[in-house]
Amino acid sequence: MVTKFFENKAPKEVEVLDTTLRDGAQARGINFDLQAKIRIALELDRVGVHFIEAGWPGSNPKDELFFREIKKYELTNSEIVAFTSTRRKGFKASSDPLLQKALDADTKWITVFGKSWDLHVRDVLKTTLEENLDMIYDTIRFFKENGRMVIFDAEHFFDGFKENKEYALQVLKTAEEAGADRIVLADTNGGSLPHEVYAIVREVGEHVKKPLGVHMHNDSGCAVANTLMGVLAGAQHVHVTVNGIGERTGNADLCVVVPDLELKMGVKALKNPEGLKMLRHLSKMVYDLAGLTPNPYQPYVGDNAFAHKAGVHVDAVLKNPRAYEHVPPESVGNERKLAISELSGAANLIGWAKRELGIVISKNDVALRRALKRIKELENKGYSFDNAFASALLILLEEMGLRGRPFKLEEWKVVSEGAEEGSRSWGVVKLSNAEVHMEAAEGVGPVETIDKALRKALDKLAPEASHVKLIDYRVHLPKASKHTESDVRVEITFTDGKEFWTTTAVSRNIIEASVRAILDGIEYYLIKKKLMLLKGSNEEAPTLLRG
Amino acid sequence: MVTKFFENKAPKEVEVLDTTLRDGAQARGINFDLQAKIRIALELDRVGVHFIEAGWPGSNPKDELFFREIKKYELTNSEIVAFTSTRRKGFKASSDPLLQKALDADTKWITVFGKSWDLHVRDVLKTTLEENLDMIYDTIRFFKENGRMVIFDAEHFFDGFKENKEYALQVLKTAEEAGADRIVLADTNGGSLPHEVYAIVREVGEHVKKPLGVHMHNDSGCAVANTLMGVLAGAQHVHVTVNGIGERTGNADLCVVVPDLELKMGVKALKNPEGLKMLRHLSKMVYDLAGLTPNPYQPYVGDNAFAHKAGVHVDAVLKNPRAYEHVPPESVGNERKLAISELSGAANLIGWAKRELGIVISKNDVALRRALKRIKELENKGYSFDNAFASALLILLEEMGLRGRPFKLEEWKVVSEGAEEGSRSWGVVKLSNAEVHMEAAEGVGPVETIDKALRKALDKLAPEASHVKLIDYRVHLPKASKHTESDVRVEITFTDGKEFWTTTAVSRNIIEASVRAILDGIEYYLIKKKLMLLKGSNEEAPTLLRG
Repeated sequence: MVTKFFENKAPKEVEVLDTTLRDGAQARGINFDLQAKIRIALELDRVGVHFIEAGWPGSNPKDELFFREIKKYELTNSEIVAFTSTRRKGFKASSDPLLQKALDADTKWITVFGKSWDLHVRDVLKTTLEENLDMIYDTIRFFKENGRMVIFDAEHFFDGFKENKEYALQVLKTAEEAGADRIVLADTNGGSLPHEVYAIVREVGEHVKKPLGVHMHNDSGCAVANTLMGVLAGAQHVHVTVNGIGERTGNADLCVVVPDLELKMGVKALKNPEGLKMLRHLSKMVYDLAGLTPNPYQPYVGDNAFAHKAGVHVDAVLKNPRAYEHVPPESVGNERKLAISELSGAANLIGWAKRELGIVISKNDVALRRALKRIKELENKGYSFDNAFASALLILLEEMGLRGRPFKLEEWKVVSEGAEEGSRSWGVVKLSNAEVHMEAAEGVGPVETIDKALRKALDKLAPEASHVKLIDYRVHLPKASKHTESDVRVEITFTDGKEFWTTTAVSRNIIEASVRAILDGIEYYLIKKKLMLLKGSNEEAPTLLRG
Repeated sequence: MVTKFFENKAPKEVEVLDTTLRDGAQARGINFDLQAKIRIALELDRVGVHFIEAGWPGSNPKDELFFREIKKYELTNSEIVAFTSTRRKGFKASSDPLLQKALDADTKWITVFGKSWDLHVRDVLKTTLEENLDMIYDTIRFFKENGRMVIFDAEHFFDGFKENKEYALQVLKTAEEAGADRIVLADTNGGSLPHEVYAIVREVGEHVKKPLGVHMHNDSGCAVANTLMGVLAGAQHVHVTVNGIGERTGNADLCVVVPDLELKMGVKALKNPEGLKMLRHLSKMVYDLAGLTPNPYQPYVGDNAFAHKAGVHVDAVLKNPRAYEHVPPESVGNERKLAISELSGAANLIGWAKRELGIVISKNDVALRRALKRIKELENKGYSFDNAFASALLILLEEMGLRGRPFKLEEWKVVSEGAEEGSRSWGVVKLSNAEVHMEAAEGVGPVETIDKALRKALDKLAPEASHVKLIDYRVHLPKASKHTESDVRVEITFTDGKEFWTTTAVSRNIIEASVRAILDGIEYYLIKKKLMLLKGSNEEAPTLLRG
C-alpha cells in the first residue's frame, strides 16, 4: 500500500456493522417483509459480519416482530443490534416508551443515535445545546444500567465538526462519559469528501479513547472511499449496507468496502474467512428480496465487473488476467465474462459455443473464421450481439453445417390503419417445412399481429416449441437515423421456463426485423434441443461435434 | 475544506475531458448510433466541457463517420479529440495505417494511449521495455510534427508505478520529451484507492512538468474519490464519462465529479457557468440514448438524490433544507422530492414555457394545474416528458387556450409485406384544415412510408413547415413488455436549422405513435412561430400572454 504523504493508522481488523435492515430499509421504494429480513440476517451471519442492525423497535410493528423471530435462530458470527434515538426532550429516559421498546427487543447491543450538529439541535430538535447533551447522556446511561452494550451514532458529525467543532466534540465526550462502547461518526447528509474524512477522523482520534466507527452516505459519490479513509485514519468499526441501499443515494456498500479492506488494505473485515466468496450471492439475494434490478456496473459483484468487451482487453486478459482485472473474480464469487462486439474477436464466440451448446471449437477453425466475418459484416450494418448470443450461434452453426433450417418463411403481410383515435391491424404469414402453413391474426399493433399469426403457424409446424415464451422485446436504432427511414434493430429474449436466450435482427422495416428475430428464437430452441439430444447420447464426448 | 494532515495542491480550475463517446462506448451493452453521438457531443459542448474524446478512428467505421459529421456543427466550448494507440511494434509511425486514420479525423487534439506497466509490455504487447518507449516517443513525435496537440494517456500507470516505479516514470518522461501537451495517469484496471492516488500523483508531480491529468475507473468503487484526490494532489485535467458508463464497472462520473469539484472543492470545472444546472438533463439524455434505465440512486442527478421518505427527514428538511441536503438540488438541475405531489414537475413546465416560448406562468395558474394533471395521467400510461418538452408544452398551450389546432388527422392506412428476403410498404393519409388533403407514398418500413405520406399532405396544408427536419427518431418500450403487445413510446427530435425540439407519443401500434409524434412536432413549430410573431410585435412584454 502506497502511503507516502499519509500516516497509515489502519487497524489490522475492523468490525463490520451491516444496517441493510435498518438504514437500507429506509430507502425509497424498499420494503422488506419479515421473512426477507430473516433470510438476509441469516445470510449476513453466514458471510460473517460482526453486527446486524436490524430495525428501530417502536417505529413499526414488523421490526418488533423481527427481534422476537430472530431469537429462534442460532447465529454463528453476528450480534443483532436494535436501533433507537435519544430520549425525548423533557422526558426521563426510563419513562420514554420508545427506549422501553428498544430494551424489549432484548438484544445485547443497542445503537443510540444523537445529534452532533448544532444546526439540527436548534432547527430540528428545537431545543438547547445543553439539553441535547443531557438527552444523549441520559439515554446511554439508561441502556448501560440495563446491561446493554451501546454504539453511539453521532448523526451529522462531519457537518457539525465543520461548523461547530467544539460542540461536536463535546457530544462525543458526553457519550463516552455516559459509557458508550463505540463512538460512530456519521456523515448523515453524505456530503463529505475523502480527504476531509481522513483529517476529521484523525483529529477526533486525539480526543476519544473508545473505538471509533464511521457511517457514510453516498451523496458525493464517495461513501466507499470515505469509509476506507476513515479506517486509514484509525476507525475500527464501519457501517455498511448490502448493495449500498439506503436513504437518497444510499450508504457505503458492504460488497465493495469489504473486499477493498480485505484484498487491498490488508484489513480483516469478516469473521468468516470464506465470507468474501459469498458476496456476489449476498448481493443478488438482497436485490431479489428488495425487488430491485441488480446494478450490472457494481464493483466486484456486478454482472459487468469482470466483463470485457473491447477486443484488445479480451485478448490481453486471456494472456494475463491481471492485465485488466484488479482482483481475481472468484475471490468475491464472481466470474469473468467475455462479450462479442464490433471491437472484439473469436474468444467470445468460442466461449458461448462451449457454454450454451457444449461445442468445443478451436480458434483456427475455418467455420469460426467465416462466422466471425459474417458477424462483423452484420455489425457494420447495425447488428449488435452483446446480448443476442443465440443469433451469433445460429450463424456459427450454419457455418459448421449444423443449422438444419427446420422451417422456411415464405411470405407475410400486415395492414394497419387508424383514424383520429385508435388503430388496428391484421396480418397473414406463410411458413413451410414439408408442407405449407398459412395463418392470419388481428391485433392493435402490426408487430403483435404478425407475431400472433407466426405463433399460429409455428404451433402446427413445430408443436414442441409451443411452450417457448417471448419475455422481452426491445427496439433500437443502430445507425444514423435519417428521418424515419432508419434501420431498426429488434432484440427479443425467449425462455422455455429453464433457460433464456436472446436474438436480434436489423431491417428498415420493423415488422420484418421482428419476424426474423422471432423465427431465429424458435429455430435456436429447436436446434439446441436437437444438439443436446445428440450430446446426451454420448455424454463422454461433448466435443464430438468438432472434436 | 478541511485539509489538516494534507497538503492541498488543487488548482483553481481543471480541464474536463469527457470520454463518454469513446471509453463509455466500450461498456457492455452500449452502442451509440451516429446521431446519438452527435446529440451527446452537442450537449457536452453546451454544458461546457473542455474536451470531447469521441472515438478511435480505425476501430470501426462509425467513429470515422462521426469525425466527418461533427465538423458540420459549430461548437462553443469543446475541442473534439480523436483517440488512438501508439504505433505498432516494428512499424514506422508514418506508415502505421491506424495513426494515419487518427490524422484523417482532422482534430486539433489527439489522445495517444501507451503502456506504462511493464507487465503489459511483456505479456500483452510482447515486446521489450525499450521498444515500448520508442513506440511512445515515435507516435507522439509523429502527431506533433503533423501539428497536433497530444494528450498522452499512460495506461495502467498506477499499477505500473506500484510494481516498477522507475519504468513507469521513464514512460512519462519519454512522452514529455516527445512533446506531449498533457500527461494523463490512467487507473485502467480501476483497482486503486484514494490515498494511493493522492500519494502517487504528488510524487509524479515532482518529476513531470507538463499538466497532469487523471483517468479513473470504478473497480474499487472509488473512481469519483480517486479523481478528486488526483486534483487535490495537483492534477489539472480529469477524464470522466456521463453517468460513469464505461468498461466493466465504468469510469468516474462527470455528473458527480464536476459538482464535487465546483460546489465542494471550489475548483472550476466547466466553461459554461450555467453548466452545472444542465447536469441532470445531460444525465437523462445519455441514459436514454444508451438505452439504459437511469440509476435513481445516482448522486446529485438521480431521481432519489433529493428524495426524502416521509417522516423525520421530510419534517426536518421543511424546517431547514440543509438538515438532510448536502447541496441545493437546483444547483445541478435536480429537485427535492418529498412525496408524490402535484407540485413536482411544475418547476420543469414553468421553466420550459419561459425558455422555449417566452411565456411566464405562475405556480398557481389553473391551466398549469390542469396541464400537470394530464401529464401525470399520461406518465402513468408510459409517457415520459424528460426530453419531449414540446409535447408537454402542447398540453399546456391547450389548457391555456392557445393551441390553435392548425390541422386535423382524419385517417391513415399502411400495408407492409415481405417474403423470404426484403420487404416493402405503401401508405395513405388524410389530413384536413379548411379542406381535405389525401396523399399516398411507398417505402420499405411502415413508419417511413406513413411519414412520407404525411409530409406530402403537410406540404400542401402548411407549406411554411416544409423546412422542418426530423433529425432523430427513437422507439422505447415504457412498461414491462408482454410478448409483442407492449405499448411503444416514440420520441422524435425536429429542427428548423436553428432550434431543436422533441415530441413523444405512446401507443400499442408503433405506426400510430409515430404519426402522432410527427404531427405534434409540426404543430409545435407552427404554434411557436405564431406565438413568437405575436411576441415580436411587443418585445417589451414577453409575459403578455399570461401577464
